[in-house]
Amino acid sequence: MQQALRAGRAATNDEHAIKRLLGAVGAMVDTIPMDGTPPETGEQVYRLVREITGVVDPYRLIKESSISEAQSLYPGLKRMVERADDRLLTAIRIAIAGNVIDFGANPSFNLVEDVSVILRQDFAVLDYVAFVSHLRDAETVLYLGDNAGESVFDKLLIEELNKDVTYVVREVPVINDVTREDAIASGLDEVAEIISSGAEAPGVILDRCTEEFRDRFARADMVISKGQGNYEGLSESTRSVFFLLKAKCPLIARDLNVREHDIVLKGVNV
Amino acid sequence: MQQALRAGRAATNDEHAIKRLLGAVGAMVDTIPMDGTPPETGEQVYRLVREITGVVDPYRLIKESSISEAQSLYPGLKRMVERADDRLLTAIRIAIAGNVIDFGANPSFNLVEDVSVILRQDFAVLDYVAFVSHLRDAETVLYLGDNAGESVFDKLLIEELNKDVTYVVREVPVINDVTREDAIASGLDEVAEIISSGAEAPGVILDRCTEEFRDRFARADMVISKGQGNYEGLSESTRSVFFLLKAKCPLIARDLNVREHDIVLKGVNV
Repeated sequence: MQQALRAGRAATNDEHAIKRLLGAVGAMVDTIPMDGTPPETGEQVYRLVREITGVVDPYRLIKESSISEAQSLYPGLKRMVERADDRLLTAIRIAIAGNVIDFGANPSFNLVEDVSVILRQDFAVLDYVAFVSHLRDAETVLYLGDNAGESVFDKLLIEELNKDVTYVVREVPVINDVTREDAIASGLDEVAEIISSGAEAPGVILDRCTEEFRDRFARADMVISKGQGNYEGLSESTRSVFFLLKAKCPLIARDLNVREHDIVLKGVNV
Repeated sequence: MQQALRAGRAATNDEHAIKRLLGAVGAMVDTIPMDGTPPETGEQVYRLVREITGVVDPYRLIKESSISEAQSLYPGLKRMVERADDRLLTAIRIAIAGNVIDFGANPSFNLVEDVSVILRQDFAVLDYVAFVSHLRDAETVLYLGDNAGESVFDKLLIEELNKDVTYVVREVPVINDVTREDAIASGLDEVAEIISSGAEAPGVILDRCTEEFRDRFARADMVISKGQGNYEGLSESTRSVFFLLKAKCPLIARDLNVREHDIVLKGVNV
């Protein structure tokens, strides 16, 4: 309900349309299965936002502003990587720091402050040895993007991977998640092939993705997944995936056996 | 939705019942009129809580604990009143401080800390001269209670009024609002006649109250009203009412032309 209200207000000033939206989202609550995941529910909520307000991408201006702000930090962060003892680990940390740009689970973030904290924060889970080992043996890396703005930080990590990287975006605008347009605005087309998962949810739910994407997902030598939405969507997957995320809600934190606000590099099925 | 979830969890551990409750409350959203007040909506939400969980008073234990905690503070606060330069104003301030005990708008309060702050806080509105003048001329005072626990602080103010006081409680348990049982547990039967408004909403909405209450409301020489719910319920009334409350949400604060967290003694139609 809160996300619907926030997206509705971003889309329109028409209080009657916002009232209709909340009514429609409210009526949907009873249909959500007990074992539904947040990205599945999110897909339905943001579809209602699009249908009722008529605005396809309510967060467009916010996403442009997030990308600009992230780009203003990019040169300093790039120097930080270049001077680091362990460039790759520093770039991973920066990519996770970018995960604070989230108007779904974390709307009151402050980019500069939050990034500064994360750059000094210990990892609660750090499967770095496995990450380095998988990366060394990989030719192709499938990189699942999460939020617009965070995408600029992803570019910095992709530059350190030195592999044939494919960057995966959402098929349609949902919350402030990264779309093809946002990925290009973030400069990701300079360092990766950009493809859509085909899914409309704020997270990669495999059975909602295109056949083509599922094939790429299965065949990639290594998969790197950003953020909570993708983690939730892939929780049943049996292939190896490295999850980079900040735990922003108690349920995800509990599932990962970490505390809220912890940062995580977790290899699953590795 | 948050209040329904909180009340549902207080009532039961049955996740399926809580799911049904949220579905029912969600389905209700579309029926809420644009100009509906929170107490009107609250009445419907807590009726659904009672019907679906089968628990008539989910906050019973919480209310008992609030009353006990308030009673443990009572002797010290009583001494504070007895030593004060202005006993009445000190008792008013204490009665407003008790208004932090609110599991609807303010569930994360800390009684001792919050009361300490309010006892040192300036009033944003202080119609004290009018209050004293009306009180001097009054024989009967109708005092509209709000939350259980806060009721103990109300007793302290009623003792300073030195008038024929009637204390008004909710007809049925709703959130942690004070009922007849809670008022008696707070010792209010020692200092006032206790009557019910007849309404089931978390606030006195006159046209949902009994004829008898409306008559008492019209005839009382002075009306003192505690809390946001009663303020919202009485916003259309044309009789003189003194509102004692802490502004806990941005809408009430805006309506009163004060800031959130401000404390207010406001005379309306005086």
